[in-house]
Amino acid sequence: MPFIVSVVGYKKSGKTTLVEHIIPILKTKGYRFGVLKYTGEGLPEEQEGKDTAKFRAAGADMVGLCGEDHFTLFKAGGHPALPLDRLAAFFFPEADLVLTEGFKKQPFPKIALLSEGQEEKLLTEVKGVVLATVGPRPFRDDLPHFQPGEAERIVEMLEQRFLKELREPRIRVWLDGKRIPMKDFVQDIVIQGIMGMLGTLKGFIPSRRVDISLSPAAAPPDNGLQ
Amino acid sequence: MPFIVSVVGYKKSGKTTLVEHIIPILKTKGYRFGVLKYTGEGLPEEQEGKDTAKFRAAGADMVGLCGEDHFTLFKAGGHPALPLDRLAAFFFPEADLVLTEGFKKQPFPKIALLSEGQEEKLLTEVKGVVLATVGPRPFRDDLPHFQPGEAERIVEMLEQRFLKELREPRIRVWLDGKRIPMKDFVQDIVIQGIMGMLGTLKGFIPSRRVDISLSPAAAPPDNGLQ
Repeated sequence: MPFIVSVVGYKKSGKTTLVEHIIPILKTKGYRFGVLKYTGEGLPEEQEGKDTAKFRAAGADMVGLCGEDHFTLFKAGGHPALPLDRLAAFFFPEADLVLTEGFKKQPFPKIALLSEGQEEKLLTEVKGVVLATVGPRPFRDDLPHFQPGEAERIVEMLEQRFLKELREPRIRVWLDGKRIPMKDFVQDIVIQGIMGMLGTLKGFIPSRRVDISLSPAAAPPDNGLQ
Repeated sequence: MPFIVSVVGYKKSGKTTLVEHIIPILKTKGYRFGVLKYTGEGLPEEQEGKDTAKFRAAGADMVGLCGEDHFTLFKAGGHPALPLDRLAAFFFPEADLVLTEGFKKQPFPKIALLSEGQEEKLLTEVKGVVLATVGPRPFRDDLPHFQPGEAERIVEMLEQRFLKELREPRIRVWLDGKRIPMKDFVQDIVIQGIMGMLGTLKGFIPSRRVDISLSPAAAPPDNGLQ
């Protein structure tokens, strides 16, 4: 499960530039990472495949295009890919870090780019821990602050914080897409129970990450087909 | 977990047109479905966001753009989104059916569009059950055959086959992304074990689908960071 950090801020605060500067530093240091940008916009016409546009026109509400090295999905009336942690686990399972631009409201650690006069507003608005602020002047004494040009120092801060932040839940369970919370000791019981069962299977190999998807027979189907 | 059916065939065999005709019929019948097209091509330049192109240029090998109703991902050197069943479960969990154009080599049921002189080649090449062939003339006696214009009858055939095909594994487990096979009775034991544990949790609700992602402590991290 990669560590997620989001670069957030209002328009023209320098998010894209900062992410652009962080990328080569992460690369030089040998990290495996993914970068995700959030945009409040709908799918731009030029960004759609010709045939998938036909499928949408024919009435499909969910249309995807899967290519050699890319995947595009359109889903009418909803974010197709949130929450961020499931998305990161799905597409970037091998990454150490997923760096995002935007995603202010998702509960992951933030680097907040301050815009003059809107500092308080931004810091109130974001969800998740604010790791540091970035801008010409510090705004809050209790937060580390960096200048916009200090991408190198920001990466060092991320390295320092990695280990602490990685104390996240070791097991995540979704019931019909809804996350169910678990206390630490319950997590341990469930992990040990599951791994105990799986460990007896032919073909089992010790693994860093285990994903399970199941359909308990108990719940009735909600349509006539199944 | 949606049922997956792939419309396959060589170039110009009429895949896109058939899918286009099937879509409104599925829609009229009230099914929830997604459509996925496979293309052997890399990400076309015009299909990329401006800022995500900058991130790629800066050296990021995995870059995504997540918008109001769309998600695009680029991953250097690899299909970002296969296998198809995980993709379908992730993006279309609420769908009855995911209809694909292409994905010949993925092991899901197929509707094979025949091109004259290449019938045998196609039927040998595809993986998974061939549900039916489509084309001007039938090619194999043991397979149902439809004319290209018979989208309505093809959908009826899909409806007939749904129930049978849904006898697929009720639990899927991936270890570091690799699927581990399980016999029927083992599936039952593991499902009952897991549901027994989860059922005792505060916040548990009966569900059609349960997803679990865990990091057992046993396996050593493969980098210095974690």
